[in-house]
Amino acid sequence: MIANDPYAELERRFARLSAVHRACAILNWDRSAMMPEGASEDRADQLATLGVIAHGMISAPDMPELLARAEEAARSLDPWRAANLREMRRSWVHESALPAELVEARTRATSACEMAWREARKNKDFTSLLPTLSEVLAVMRRVGEAKAAALGTSLYDALLDEFEPGGRSARIDTLFAELRGFLPDLLGRVMEHQGRAPKPLVLDGPFPVAQQRKLGEELIRLIGFDFSHGRLDVSEHPFTGGTADDVRITTRYDEADFARALMGTLHETGHGLYEAGLPRAWRRQPVGNARGMVLHESQSLLMEMQACRSDAFLAFAAPRMRAAFGKDGPAWTADNIHRVYTWVVPGFIRVDADEVTYPLHIMLRYRLERALLAGDLALADLPGAWNEGMRELLGIVPTDAAVGCLQDIHWPDGGWGYFPTYTLGALAAAQLFGAARKAHPGLLEAIGKGDFAPLLGWLRANVHGKGSLAGTDEILVEATGAPLGTAAFKAHLESRYLSA
Amino acid sequence: MIANDPYAELERRFARLSAVHRACAILNWDRSAMMPEGASEDRADQLATLGVIAHGMISAPDMPELLARAEEAARSLDPWRAANLREMRRSWVHESALPAELVEARTRATSACEMAWREARKNKDFTSLLPTLSEVLAVMRRVGEAKAAALGTSLYDALLDEFEPGGRSARIDTLFAELRGFLPDLLGRVMEHQGRAPKPLVLDGPFPVAQQRKLGEELIRLIGFDFSHGRLDVSEHPFTGGTADDVRITTRYDEADFARALMGTLHETGHGLYEAGLPRAWRRQPVGNARGMVLHESQSLLMEMQACRSDAFLAFAAPRMRAAFGKDGPAWTADNIHRVYTWVVPGFIRVDADEVTYPLHIMLRYRLERALLAGDLALADLPGAWNEGMRELLGIVPTDAAVGCLQDIHWPDGGWGYFPTYTLGALAAAQLFGAARKAHPGLLEAIGKGDFAPLLGWLRANVHGKGSLAGTDEILVEATGAPLGTAAFKAHLESRYLSA
Repeated sequence: MIANDPYAELERRFARLSAVHRACAILNWDRSAMMPEGASEDRADQLATLGVIAHGMISAPDMPELLARAEEAARSLDPWRAANLREMRRSWVHESALPAELVEARTRATSACEMAWREARKNKDFTSLLPTLSEVLAVMRRVGEAKAAALGTSLYDALLDEFEPGGRSARIDTLFAELRGFLPDLLGRVMEHQGRAPKPLVLDGPFPVAQQRKLGEELIRLIGFDFSHGRLDVSEHPFTGGTADDVRITTRYDEADFARALMGTLHETGHGLYEAGLPRAWRRQPVGNARGMVLHESQSLLMEMQACRSDAFLAFAAPRMRAAFGKDGPAWTADNIHRVYTWVVPGFIRVDADEVTYPLHIMLRYRLERALLAGDLALADLPGAWNEGMRELLGIVPTDAAVGCLQDIHWPDGGWGYFPTYTLGALAAAQLFGAARKAHPGLLEAIGKGDFAPLLGWLRANVHGKGSLAGTDEILVEATGAPLGTAAFKAHLESRYLSA
Repeated sequence: MIANDPYAELERRFARLSAVHRACAILNWDRSAMMPEGASEDRADQLATLGVIAHGMISAPDMPELLARAEEAARSLDPWRAANLREMRRSWVHESALPAELVEARTRATSACEMAWREARKNKDFTSLLPTLSEVLAVMRRVGEAKAAALGTSLYDALLDEFEPGGRSARIDTLFAELRGFLPDLLGRVMEHQGRAPKPLVLDGPFPVAQQRKLGEELIRLIGFDFSHGRLDVSEHPFTGGTADDVRITTRYDEADFARALMGTLHETGHGLYEAGLPRAWRRQPVGNARGMVLHESQSLLMEMQACRSDAFLAFAAPRMRAAFGKDGPAWTADNIHRVYTWVVPGFIRVDADEVTYPLHIMLRYRLERALLAGDLALADLPGAWNEGMRELLGIVPTDAAVGCLQDIHWPDGGWGYFPTYTLGALAAAQLFGAARKAHPGLLEAIGKGDFAPLLGWLRANVHGKGSLAGTDEILVEATGAPLGTAAFKAHLESRYLSA
């Protein structure tokens, strides 16, 4: 039976589907932030079952006809509904490309591998991860093949498209080539420039977790994080989860070093503000979702790298840090704290990398995951290839797998095709922050007073509130006057790391 | 299409259904223990949708034929599978009795009312609860009518049957009449006896939450709560949620009074141990569920009232309490702490009531909910009827609605027919503990050394590990030699409160 108003029927079905997805988002958050370790199989079964149920809903036999009939009448829809219908089609293409057994196999394989990864990383033992990671790789190849056939793309682009709608590796190759031509030379110049400046003084701890938490909460509340619609908790691997009405951000405290956890919290706050700012009227429909991971990462990196590592913000935050920990002295000046937060050092760990070397970490992962998926690199050879790439791109070689190819959760977790979005997000962040400053010449000055309203207002209007109304490039063109490029990012790095 | 092996097909379907129910259990726990207040509508939508999905799964059109065909071949099933099939039928009767729209209406009404109740209780304002509670009552009447038709029982018994399979009000009326004839007289004798004893000395605080939490964790770990399969958190209304592999218990701390929260934690631990002890091989099938709320409450009350308020346990716990809070002196002797924990005083609040007066609170609620459901009492007249009943049964009148008819979450939450299981559970607890002591004459002595293994072993074998293999009375007869009765409870009260 096909409804009289196929578009309305689709909205009804996608609202149901959204409720299942939102439930899964909370269960996923709980798994990382709350769940006792002994419950991992139980939770994997819950998530796999809900995944199969969601898959069954979207690949109902009458869905193609419903979509086709709604599309025939699409001219009568307003722009939001038209975009919503387009996003429904997109979801359907991605989901219906996969048979139910493959969806379930993916969920089970990634759940098992994620748990094995936690152990393997703890024990610095890549070999112990091989069985479950091979399973994940095999499943992701099947997923990629199936989606490639449906989308008419390469296997890699099909996986990428899930995270970044319309993202294509040809475009990434171009952008990354520009960065590859620029960054190693810049890194040399930065190291030379930095060598002439005073080294940052160490911020001596210990920093009790309770005080770190309090400072983090104070700052993110001020930035605009709404605790009546969100929480800040702890997890092994910081992330933003939950729903637009119930944003769950996590961080990881270290009593010897507050600076990292604090900046991590500000980073996740950028993600969280994007979710919280999605169009209120479309929260339960596909068009109300965030556009993709490039814009999502742009929001976290804009908050962390552009706004919160600025001189202006750190001058505002420094006295609050001193008060939080009862500190004083030369290490605790705004200048020194800024030096701590903008010091460039090639290192093993992606999440600890500075802005200049971070894209090199990403290029390595992008290269390796393509080779693994294509079968050009055997999984058993990953540690060697990883170390080789680190030597080539960053000039250093990890001392063990925990600080090498075991450091990230993405591959165990099924996030193949995700890594490039970090660096594309960094490009977008620089581009958007530049445009926001142009629109509000007093923006940085306001941030220096702890006033994020101009920035947040601009982001709500130009990014958050658009949801998935348009594509990433369309949103960027409207907001900044240009599609995604490297110019703003390059200018930002040169200005921050080579001037003064 | 009907499967070749209908029983196996049913197991497959009920495993899926169990996964959805387990997911909902975690989402429900999160709602009470973690969720920010602004997310209540979002969460209500998730739970309502999953409720509809679960309902659709169990009321699939071919389910009656599958059940009938499996039942035809039931003689070839072993006892666990046969019992599982019987429990599947039971679930199906309960669920298929309700149309999908009624399931959704119930979830939405109770979600809305639960949120309103939190406000109403805070503001001591029953009137503000009337609109949403009327909605819940109307929905529960429809639920009761539909189930009564399917089960061939009265409306009230149909609601009761959901919590206590096979529970009937005629039986409750008999048991409660026995208690009604005994308790008021006993209460008089206890007050007289107590008047001749020294009053308990006050345990002076403050008691920092961190230290309360640590002491509670220490004691429940020792009793057998497994933190690799469970958590202890905080919620407004303490409860046990989650799944058998992921038991979530909650408590509520008061810095002025540690004794209440600690005993609440021990109470929930009894529930949690039941869940954790359910038969491992049947965790995802109906027969693997706890038998019903009478046995569930028996497990919490056995742990709290029989084991942990005993002289033996409190002699063991007293030095640990002194160490936890750095206390000493006459108030902190085991004797005085035992007096604190067994002092009988008629009061307004059910959850704070002693063992002697608790059943009187239950009789009041049982009487009122039957009258409300039958239409013999208007909801607007509830506060008056409540106060009248308190005067009659306990001789005291609540000073406001927050300590009167607004104190419990059950009616807002849809738990109509639940209250009597508390007192039936108290009867079962006394009966089971007596049987366990008979089986292990050194049981109390072991508890006095902090060794709960004999008790837990007996409970695992005689209650927990049976899941829903048999009915409540069958389990009690096998474990104690008699069906549910009042004798053991009466003897327990006389022994604890009238001797010495």
